[in-house]
Amino acid sequence: MTREEMIETYRQWVFRMSAYQMALSIIEIDKATVAPAAGASYRDERSAYLAGEAYSIMMDPKMLEIVNILKDDEQVDPVVRRGCQLYAIRLGNSLSFPKEKYVAQSMLFNQAYDAWLQAKRENDYSIFEPYLKKIIESRREEYACRNSNLPLYDQMLQDYEPGMTMEKYDAFFSALTERLVPLIHRVRQADQIDDSFLHHNYPIEGQKKFMEHLLSYLHFDPSWGYQNETEHPFTSWTCQNDCRTTTKYIQNDVASAILSTIHEAGHAWYEHNIDPLYDGMILSDGVSCGMHESQSRLLENHLGRSKAFWKTNYPVLQEIFPSQLGEVTLEQFVAAINVAKPSLVRTEADELTYPLHIAIRYEIEKGLFNGTISTEHLDETWNAMYEKYLGVKAEQASQGILQDVHWSSGSFGYFPTYALGSAYAAQFVSAMEKQIDVQKLLEENRFDEIEQWLKDHIHQYGCYLESEDILKQATGERFNVNTYLDYLCDKYTGLYGLKGE
Amino acid sequence: MTREEMIETYRQWVFRMSAYQMALSIIEIDKATVAPAAGASYRDERSAYLAGEAYSIMMDPKMLEIVNILKDDEQVDPVVRRGCQLYAIRLGNSLSFPKEKYVAQSMLFNQAYDAWLQAKRENDYSIFEPYLKKIIESRREEYACRNSNLPLYDQMLQDYEPGMTMEKYDAFFSALTERLVPLIHRVRQADQIDDSFLHHNYPIEGQKKFMEHLLSYLHFDPSWGYQNETEHPFTSWTCQNDCRTTTKYIQNDVASAILSTIHEAGHAWYEHNIDPLYDGMILSDGVSCGMHESQSRLLENHLGRSKAFWKTNYPVLQEIFPSQLGEVTLEQFVAAINVAKPSLVRTEADELTYPLHIAIRYEIEKGLFNGTISTEHLDETWNAMYEKYLGVKAEQASQGILQDVHWSSGSFGYFPTYALGSAYAAQFVSAMEKQIDVQKLLEENRFDEIEQWLKDHIHQYGCYLESEDILKQATGERFNVNTYLDYLCDKYTGLYGLKGE
Repeated sequence: MTREEMIETYRQWVFRMSAYQMALSIIEIDKATVAPAAGASYRDERSAYLAGEAYSIMMDPKMLEIVNILKDDEQVDPVVRRGCQLYAIRLGNSLSFPKEKYVAQSMLFNQAYDAWLQAKRENDYSIFEPYLKKIIESRREEYACRNSNLPLYDQMLQDYEPGMTMEKYDAFFSALTERLVPLIHRVRQADQIDDSFLHHNYPIEGQKKFMEHLLSYLHFDPSWGYQNETEHPFTSWTCQNDCRTTTKYIQNDVASAILSTIHEAGHAWYEHNIDPLYDGMILSDGVSCGMHESQSRLLENHLGRSKAFWKTNYPVLQEIFPSQLGEVTLEQFVAAINVAKPSLVRTEADELTYPLHIAIRYEIEKGLFNGTISTEHLDETWNAMYEKYLGVKAEQASQGILQDVHWSSGSFGYFPTYALGSAYAAQFVSAMEKQIDVQKLLEENRFDEIEQWLKDHIHQYGCYLESEDILKQATGERFNVNTYLDYLCDKYTGLYGLKGE
Repeated sequence: MTREEMIETYRQWVFRMSAYQMALSIIEIDKATVAPAAGASYRDERSAYLAGEAYSIMMDPKMLEIVNILKDDEQVDPVVRRGCQLYAIRLGNSLSFPKEKYVAQSMLFNQAYDAWLQAKRENDYSIFEPYLKKIIESRREEYACRNSNLPLYDQMLQDYEPGMTMEKYDAFFSALTERLVPLIHRVRQADQIDDSFLHHNYPIEGQKKFMEHLLSYLHFDPSWGYQNETEHPFTSWTCQNDCRTTTKYIQNDVASAILSTIHEAGHAWYEHNIDPLYDGMILSDGVSCGMHESQSRLLENHLGRSKAFWKTNYPVLQEIFPSQLGEVTLEQFVAAINVAKPSLVRTEADELTYPLHIAIRYEIEKGLFNGTISTEHLDETWNAMYEKYLGVKAEQASQGILQDVHWSSGSFGYFPTYALGSAYAAQFVSAMEKQIDVQKLLEENRFDEIEQWLKDHIHQYGCYLESEDILKQATGERFNVNTYLDYLCDKYTGLYGLKGE
């Protein structure tokens, strides 16, 4: 095969995979938003079959040969080479995992999602536990097919964040807990900020009305984005011009859907801003989960919880909820959405205690894969760790072990990237604020200009550059957890009128 | 291959096709409801590819051999045999139409839908015309690959309603126009019924609230059904437990979304009630378009426009819209939703003039395929026929030639089944009323019992029995257009206080 023939074969192969990926992505969005539950098993069986077809196409040994040749061929277009480099890793990792096993695993994930949903609704971990156990076994089996000397959980961590290991995460989480645990303690001793008004009754109709306004403020354009509702908010996409977000409305927590909407918009903007040249290719994705979470956490925390953000938005919210917020000032509202208070549910956690939610999950995942923790009574293990780290205890499994969707799809190693992303975000914001007047843009409804900075410095590259190169290029620095910790300490000592550390 | 091996090969083949059909169906629903428009071309290209994969699987010459053997093998389970019989027809018809052409056609339909949507929004037929022309050419080319001596349009008619021909439809539409045109004329001369209150301002939020109630009254259960919004209402399904309907809200026409919701619920119930044994098989579908439309039209007209239907529902509607309907009695409301008045838009047409909308489309389709009508200036041809048949003229293409979605997906020969279905419906209702007290069930919120009758007599069979056998078995009679015409004449002479014909 000539170079040109190989490139053409490669392009067709990529197109075919992108078609299945698109179908599976739309089926998944549909499943998580509007699809009637009784049809789940029919659909699940068939989407698992289609996932198997996609897997068959991908796991073509001939293609591994081709991508291995093209990735090292200097004459080949660099975009193709980078794609081949990434595929070489993916194929190399997975080629020995047989298709039947892959299809069975897909089916298991589909069923586990349904079981998780039911378990959460019925507050009964025992419904989900057998699936969780099977998923762990299935993941073990899958990774056993790889040709790696790394510990299992390290391999998983790298799948979500190339280059990360337990050693590095241990150091990261140590640094976090070392500074945050005492700070949280001091915050708890300080005068508390009133946020009770956030928990009045906020009819969902009104919340939806505000969300329309908010999405428009975020320049989340209906021509390329659509927001729906789901049990556990997520973002999904098929291409640059098709990015879907989801949210969940809670009647007595007006901030929840708002902050999740801003969070997911961060993911959606990332995908929307990737160079359209990469559409349908492996490059058309956030470069790592940490980088993706950095964008959602940046929007949610650094922008969405700022006073500047709310300057024009808060009056709109007040107008929709006059009886709940009419007497609450902008300053009081912004303070309230920044309150730090140990709580049970990660997605509704404040910015300061959030990383401890992640630390708990990291410890549990490590334990599940080194054999020190089992799925049996994991709800109790979970609760004990929440008491230890955060001093709170879940009365209901839906607010404890069952709160997150991730494990139902076998995503172990993903959680740590939320904390890592938060740390990346702090570095990006620090750099961005030196170049553009973020506060002013927020106040003047010029959110698109902030997105333009993020596009220029981060988003456009997709997977073309590595995380660390993007970070270096955008901030002029290497990864440094202290930027994040300094930011949190400054913010919360200020908010609660504490003296320096 | 032994019989058992053939059956197993057949089953696997059917499963594989059903997976693609499910994916394509969900992608289509997504496209027509929530998918961001800017992503259309990306998605369209990929769904056309997947349609091609499904087509490749279906058009396997080896499978034609197998289904031809199995369909005639008395030892084989009758459900499998009937499936093979239907596939033998489908494969025999399509086997010579090459996959590349099929994929190109799928792509054309996807693009034509987008063009139609844009043309309709911009009221500009010239945007859609080139696509319509290409679609007709593509259909000609496709049917030229068949081995049939029938005229082209007859072949198309049979695809939607086996056994029907232009000769039969000509007789059918003659009978209709012969009795209905003078009746419509007499109605127009009579004292008119006030329906102006239906066209006040009905905020869509309120309409949606009523729709929730209505879907519940229709026992359209969220566990197996979901309703969304679209430009042109349709129903789609993936299996017995996954039936999706759509509707469209019009602010100054409160009856439109209501009647379309009832109409689509008729389609959804049909699919939901098919024997679950047939799930995923070719049998799991309405036996013909006419039969499908008979169920939607039965619900819409015979049930949804009856006083008994509104006895408990009208007070709910009144409560939501007190200023618009507070002073309107049940009798006035029911009379208003039955008003006959020549109008422009088929989907909002009354029951009496509706068949003439169909007659127009039938004449145009016949002309398009026998060469007497061209797509050029078809908007004018359309308007001229509306003037001739109904005495009304569209000022805007969106209310004329561009009102229907069907031609954008190459569905020629489908429209006549709407009128045929209306005629079937009258026969079914006549039989049903002899066996169960329909009025009472409607009044007592026992809609599910009506559905049970329809399930027992019609729905459960899917494609297992032919249309004419179902009709015969359910009504004890063969098809007879006069039942329908007598019903319309009785109803409208009564409503408008006319003397007998």
